[in-house]
Amino acid sequence: MVSSVAIVAGLGNGSGTGGAAARLFAKEGYAVALISRGSESLNALASSIKESGGKANTFPVPAYGPDEIGAAFSEIHKQYPSSEYAIKVAIFNIGHTVGGPFLQVTAEDIRESNKINIESSFAFARGAILAFQQNEVTTTGKGTLVFTGATASMRGNVTTSGFASGKFAVRALAQSLAKEFGKEDIHVAHAIIDGRVATGNVRGDRNTPPSGPVENPTPELKLSPESIAAAYLYLVNQDRAAWTWELDLRPAHEKW
Amino acid sequence: MVSSVAIVAGLGNGSGTGGAAARLFAKEGYAVALISRGSESLNALASSIKESGGKANTFPVPAYGPDEIGAAFSEIHKQYPSSEYAIKVAIFNIGHTVGGPFLQVTAEDIRESNKINIESSFAFARGAILAFQQNEVTTTGKGTLVFTGATASMRGNVTTSGFASGKFAVRALAQSLAKEFGKEDIHVAHAIIDGRVATGNVRGDRNTPPSGPVENPTPELKLSPESIAAAYLYLVNQDRAAWTWELDLRPAHEKW
Amino acid sequence: MVSSVAIVAGLGNGSGTGGAAARLFAKEGYAVALISRGSESLNALASSIKESGGKANTFPVPAYGPDEIGAAFSEIHKQYPSSEYAIKVAIFNIGHTVGGPFLQVTAEDIRESNKINIESSFAFARGAILAFQQNEVTTTGKGTLVFTGATASMRGNVTTSGFASGKFAVRALAQSLAKEFGKEDIHVAHAIIDGRVATGNVRGDRNTPPSGPVENPTPELKLSPESIAAAYLYLVNQDRAAWTWELDLRPAHEKW
Amino acid sequence: MVSSVAIVAGLGNGSGTGGAAARLFAKEGYAVALISRGSESLNALASSIKESGGKANTFPVPAYGPDEIGAAFSEIHKQYPSSEYAIKVAIFNIGHTVGGPFLQVTAEDIRESNKINIESSFAFARGAILAFQQNEVTTTGKGTLVFTGATASMRGNVTTSGFASGKFAVRALAQSLAKEFGKEDIHVAHAIIDGRVATGNVRGDRNTPPSGPVENPTPELKLSPESIAAAYLYLVNQDRAAWTWELDLRPAHEKW
Repeated sequence: MVSSVAIVAGLGNGSGTGGAAARLFAKEGYAVALISRGSESLNALASSIKESGGKANTFPVPAYGPDEIGAAFSEIHKQYPSSEYAIKVAIFNIGHTVGGPFLQVTAEDIRESNKINIESSFAFARGAILAFQQNEVTTTGKGTLVFTGATASMRGNVTTSGFASGKFAVRALAQSLAKEFGKEDIHVAHAIIDGRVATGNVRGDRNTPPSGPVENPTPELKLSPESIAAAYLYLVNQDRAAWTWELDLRPAHEKW
Repeated sequence: MVSSVAIVAGLGNGSGTGGAAARLFAKEGYAVALISRGSESLNALASSIKESGGKANTFPVPAYGPDEIGAAFSEIHKQYPSSEYAIKVAIFNIGHTVGGPFLQVTAEDIRESNKINIESSFAFARGAILAFQQNEVTTTGKGTLVFTGATASMRGNVTTSGFASGKFAVRALAQSLAKEFGKEDIHVAHAIIDGRVATGNVRGDRNTPPSGPVENPTPELKLSPESIAAAYLYLVNQDRAAWTWELDLRPAHEKW
Repeated sequence: MVSSVAIVAGLGNGSGTGGAAARLFAKEGYAVALISRGSESLNALASSIKESGGKANTFPVPAYGPDEIGAAFSEIHKQYPSSEYAIKVAIFNIGHTVGGPFLQVTAEDIRESNKINIESSFAFARGAILAFQQNEVTTTGKGTLVFTGATASMRGNVTTSGFASGKFAVRALAQSLAKEFGKEDIHVAHAIIDGRVATGNVRGDRNTPPSGPVENPTPELKLSPESIAAAYLYLVNQDRAAWTWELDLRPAHEKW
Repeated sequence: MVSSVAIVAGLGNGSGTGGAAARLFAKEGYAVALISRGSESLNALASSIKESGGKANTFPVPAYGPDEIGAAFSEIHKQYPSSEYAIKVAIFNIGHTVGGPFLQVTAEDIRESNKINIESSFAFARGAILAFQQNEVTTTGKGTLVFTGATASMRGNVTTSGFASGKFAVRALAQSLAKEFGKEDIHVAHAIIDGRVATGNVRGDRNTPPSGPVENPTPELKLSPESIAAAYLYLVNQDRAAWTWELDLRPAHEKW
């Protein structure tokens, strides 16, 4: 019997949404394939998962771009041969913020944003969908691809021109794919994270990756990465008779 | 220790979303309070829940309107005294379809639609929120109010003028309440059911209420009530750090 | 040759959007049929239009509801026989605000809101569409029905549950009609007024109807009724090859 | 007294939206600055405008990209010194379609789409806004920037992943800019062209630029470029008290 693989891309220092998703899917029995920049945090995250009895492998990339994502998928296929493994989950958590007033945003900023946000998401989706197409249809379909969105996925705002354009583009991709591949029993979902996330940056030391979940002292004001990861697990477990394309997630007291 | 109560309003013949939600929340240990027209189906549903070891009470109404909903809440409070019970979940599943070409829709149709869809939803929300305000804050908040929406909640279309106006109005209510009461730790959610549901009408005999879940032979084409109910349970169990206001639900192969 | 008639419903004291639309369409040569409560302001508005060389008739109603709107249309047809007149424009500017915290909104408030906002809009649309269907197709179609929307047409918010539900419902109607009757060459449009309007209430005396446009000293902060009316005229004059269903209108400095 | 300049970018063979806008603004007295690939069509369009008594200059670019757009703006400033001219209108009509099934879209396609759709729109917006900031505030503000959108600006669909991501991104830019620069009295608008446009491609010979408007034999089925241009002129002429950010445009009989 084959084992299930969950790919998570975009892990930062391991204390945010990507890290929480990696830990949760590992706990659920998935072999987790971790794609990220910054091999130190990546290794720390993988070690911490293994210490808790999970299976994890790292696929560090020097930068987020379509070539790097494509190369990571090649490595993942080598590491997880289809005779023994089925890639069932793929979470795109890569994001690049271009902030500040519009007139301070340079052409280079936009090129970089497009590469990281859009070109990478297309490459990641390509890898995920080609992998899912190899799977059998089960109650939950052939596989689930989840994109992490943001407030800026829905609404442009003052000083968000650069960020919103990238997030809108990824949302368009997610919606198009959900429609194109639903009929092939591939589930594509988009989660709008509408609030501040209580990552390690917020919750403590920015540079030291945490060995596990960090406490969120004010869950009514900030999103817990673990709660976002729980939403992703719910999406993955939805059966084919009721799939969600999009949901929003925010803390109870968020003003919106 | 108090027991938790889940109120479900709008049960039809018990084979659709409302019935599935009632069975699921009963199975999860909630005492379920069932508000509906048609006492025969209602009694059959309650009996079937009790036979499975669940707790259920019926609160039949002669019609769906604000006075009837208000009266049902009064009965519910008598049946479930706050010394022993806490109302934690309220599901508004009442809906009234005014279909057909616009010029065939009468003033009376609209008045009836407004009463059933809008006045009832306001009355139901009032009852739910007043009840939730009595509760302690837990990890998941003080209580969860879920509205069942439809494709017509998002988009008016040819021959849906009457139906869409009611569903848009309920969605506005749901969004307003989510914003107004989130800061009181009350969770309000809206589920867009975007496809045909495999109810008893679709799956078998229209008039005889089923004793349990009816088979959905084509989950890729029609929503299972049980899958919708599972989504409602997920919403209810979301912790305060990541609440969803809105999600869509559709079968894998739905064209949208 | 027949003359064109523009119906405007909902005129308040004549200093807002409805009054500006009435004056503008009269100036463009339409005979304007004015439906409103409050016959004093209504007569003052009609007189002021006539003094400027326009044609205006008043159709006062005791209240806004489907029967009253229906009766006004009957009177309009008597006043403007189809042998001499063609009803080409209909502007629904009636609105009813139910404000305040949700728990202060009564069942009666909602019933009243539904009657004024929704039942009236359906009745008005029915009258307009039946009238337009009698017309020849011209470059601009058979007729244009415009609904005045608001921020609350798009977004529920804290303390807007009552208002938003009515405005969402009217928007659903407008969208459904645009799709259903576009193919009959009838143009239906919805304008989202997203900001405060510099009406007489804002600009001066609330009760005395102004004899004409009132100055808007801060056009960058408040909408001028005359500018909204200009948008309605643009919509009416759009040719069939490029019809707008929805546009938003707000002052330059509005935060949104 | 200074003359007003309207910049139009993206002209194809001159028979579509860009060409119609150029002719209309020239007719309204603007000196039109035309940025496009394909100098033959561009020259033919400019000649035709001049023959009709208008003022036009061409700014051909070898490709659509941020550097090329930036260079064109430099040339425009040389051609139209601020002592004699004020740039008041800028229309971004450049678009690049990446069609077909998702798995056929290459990384190069996306890079190209991002360059043409997104990097170019950011560069164009930068040029326009810096120019507008030099102007005096008039009734209509300091200047108007209009983006041509499409159905795919609002909704991803099967086989539109590549196209929709670019159009969503531009819409995000347009909305962000409208909010950021509205308070500087700069008007930014986004027009959703929701249907097929009756360009020369549709209406006749694809390669020969037409000398003027080409007939649209079925205005109820296809958008006329002239009608779209009329909408742009309306947006430009809106006074500061009622600015539209977004409107949709479609033929009367369009199914949507």
